[in-house]
Amino acid sequence: MSEPFRVTRRVEFYETDMAGIMHFSNFFRYMEFAEVEFLRAQGLSVAWQESHGERIGFPRVSAACEYRRPVRFDDVVEIEVRIARLGGKSISYEFAFTCRGEAIAQGKVTAAYCVKHADGTLESVEIPADLREKLSR
Amino acid sequence: MSEPFRVTRRVEFYETDMAGIMHFSNFFRYMEFAEVEFLRAQGLSVAWQESHGERIGFPRVSAACEYRRPVRFDDVVEIEVRIARLGGKSISYEFAFTCRGEAIAQGKVTAAYCVKHADGTLESVEIPADLREKLSR
Amino acid sequence: MSEPFRVTRRVEFYETDMAGIMHFSNFFRYMEFAEVEFLRAQGLSVAWQESHGERIGFPRVSAACEYRRPVRFDDVVEIEVRIARLGGKSISYEFAFTCRGEAIAQGKVTAAYCVKHADGTLESVEIPADLREKLSR
Amino acid sequence: MSEPFRVTRRVEFYETDMAGIMHFSNFFRYMEFAEVEFLRAQGLSVAWQESHGERIGFPRVSAACEYRRPVRFDDVVEIEVRIARLGGKSISYEFAFTCRGEAIAQGKVTAAYCVKHADGTLESVEIPADLREKLSR
Repeated sequence: MSEPFRVTRRVEFYETDMAGIMHFSNFFRYMEFAEVEFLRAQGLSVAWQESHGERIGFPRVSAACEYRRPVRFDDVVEIEVRIARLGGKSISYEFAFTCRGEAIAQGKVTAAYCVKHADGTLESVEIPADLREKLSR
Repeated sequence: MSEPFRVTRRVEFYETDMAGIMHFSNFFRYMEFAEVEFLRAQGLSVAWQESHGERIGFPRVSAACEYRRPVRFDDVVEIEVRIARLGGKSISYEFAFTCRGEAIAQGKVTAAYCVKHADGTLESVEIPADLREKLSR
Repeated sequence: MSEPFRVTRRVEFYETDMAGIMHFSNFFRYMEFAEVEFLRAQGLSVAWQESHGERIGFPRVSAACEYRRPVRFDDVVEIEVRIARLGGKSISYEFAFTCRGEAIAQGKVTAAYCVKHADGTLESVEIPADLREKLSR
Repeated sequence: MSEPFRVTRRVEFYETDMAGIMHFSNFFRYMEFAEVEFLRAQGLSVAWQESHGERIGFPRVSAACEYRRPVRFDDVVEIEVRIARLGGKSISYEFAFTCRGEAIAQGKVTAAYCVKHADGTLESVEIPADLREKLSR
């Protein structure tokens, strides 16, 4: 749908585990980082949080990752973000992880656009037209 | 394939995020916890680590989670573990997360059985017959 | 001031790092876990969160840990919690970590009793008399 | 002892907690990040890991942090690193955290220089002369 957007991260010591590689759960945190940077690049990050006078959250509907090669402390990981699908109330992102030009992992996250009410409950709502327009570019 | 095995965890304060719910990445850590406890219950956990005089790691081939309802600080989460498939070199687990009897999330992890060599590289190898037998019970 | 309260935790795989030991930052998460369980044992945990119709947070004023021996995956860590000082607006806890009877680490955390206002700002306030009484037991 | 070295980090969504601020434990991970970048700037980072044909770890002897103001998602945090003391077998770092020019936190970490033996045990050893010289610059 959109052209890929790229960010890089260097693997932190605290992200490794006793097998000497980055713990598999951290790839999902990298996906969130990439999503945030992608939104920021669209001028959306901050506005989104305070959008329309409501507190917005992005609970995930689903998340998945396929791992091909491990990464280690100090490795620089490149993450390509692409919107795979822009639904009425949700966005699906695809993430391609590479390191030194080699494919490391492939991820996918679907996030729902939700309003957080005063009582703490979350409600899935339609993505506002102005945000949709920016995301569709 | 096997009967479900159940463990529980209480959501920690540090596992929550600013949306007031457990961060989605932590469900993958709960899956690892459930897998470890499952293996321990089979009498495998410690032996596995030192199996056959080699250092064994369990890098994930894939991991996925579908989220239905959020959980919050202090919620007690029950996790059902089931072996979905016992392959030659890998195991696939399915995890059903519930809280107060409601379905919260559904996860799946496939882990490869790997030897860690002295130079730090990982090699995917056949699951030894004795481990396979224990897992097949 | 008070008698020690004890909780145990088993070191998770994802809490280890590439040095093969629990990452030093996780001791602070264990302190939080021990504090939460301590408060729960006093009947405070849930009431505290919803105390007096206000949203309460516990931002830390300070945290410190001295490490003597590392702990590894699967180690069972015992944590002794003790209130070192109950101030007007803050509580200081001391934590003694042991594993197989050996001293592992010694921690200290001071937490301020704060109200979170609607605009997200935190204000340090006096610990209410009823909570103070329960904590003083 | 030395001139301050500065690095910056932006607070990630997954580093926040339900109080809406960065979890206090993450400041210790930021200290590690700052230490790693400091060593890298001295040309030490990679060499250090493979130093003299031995596997080197840096278990912490102590870590402490005093918190003045919370930081939130998307805040850019500046961290000043300074070697407070270069001992025979250990290094003490001081970290000053600021955000938008305001003091946020003040940290201190003492790390021992250790060799990791084949059996997994750690031994505290003298910092080699060549490393000491680079650190003393």
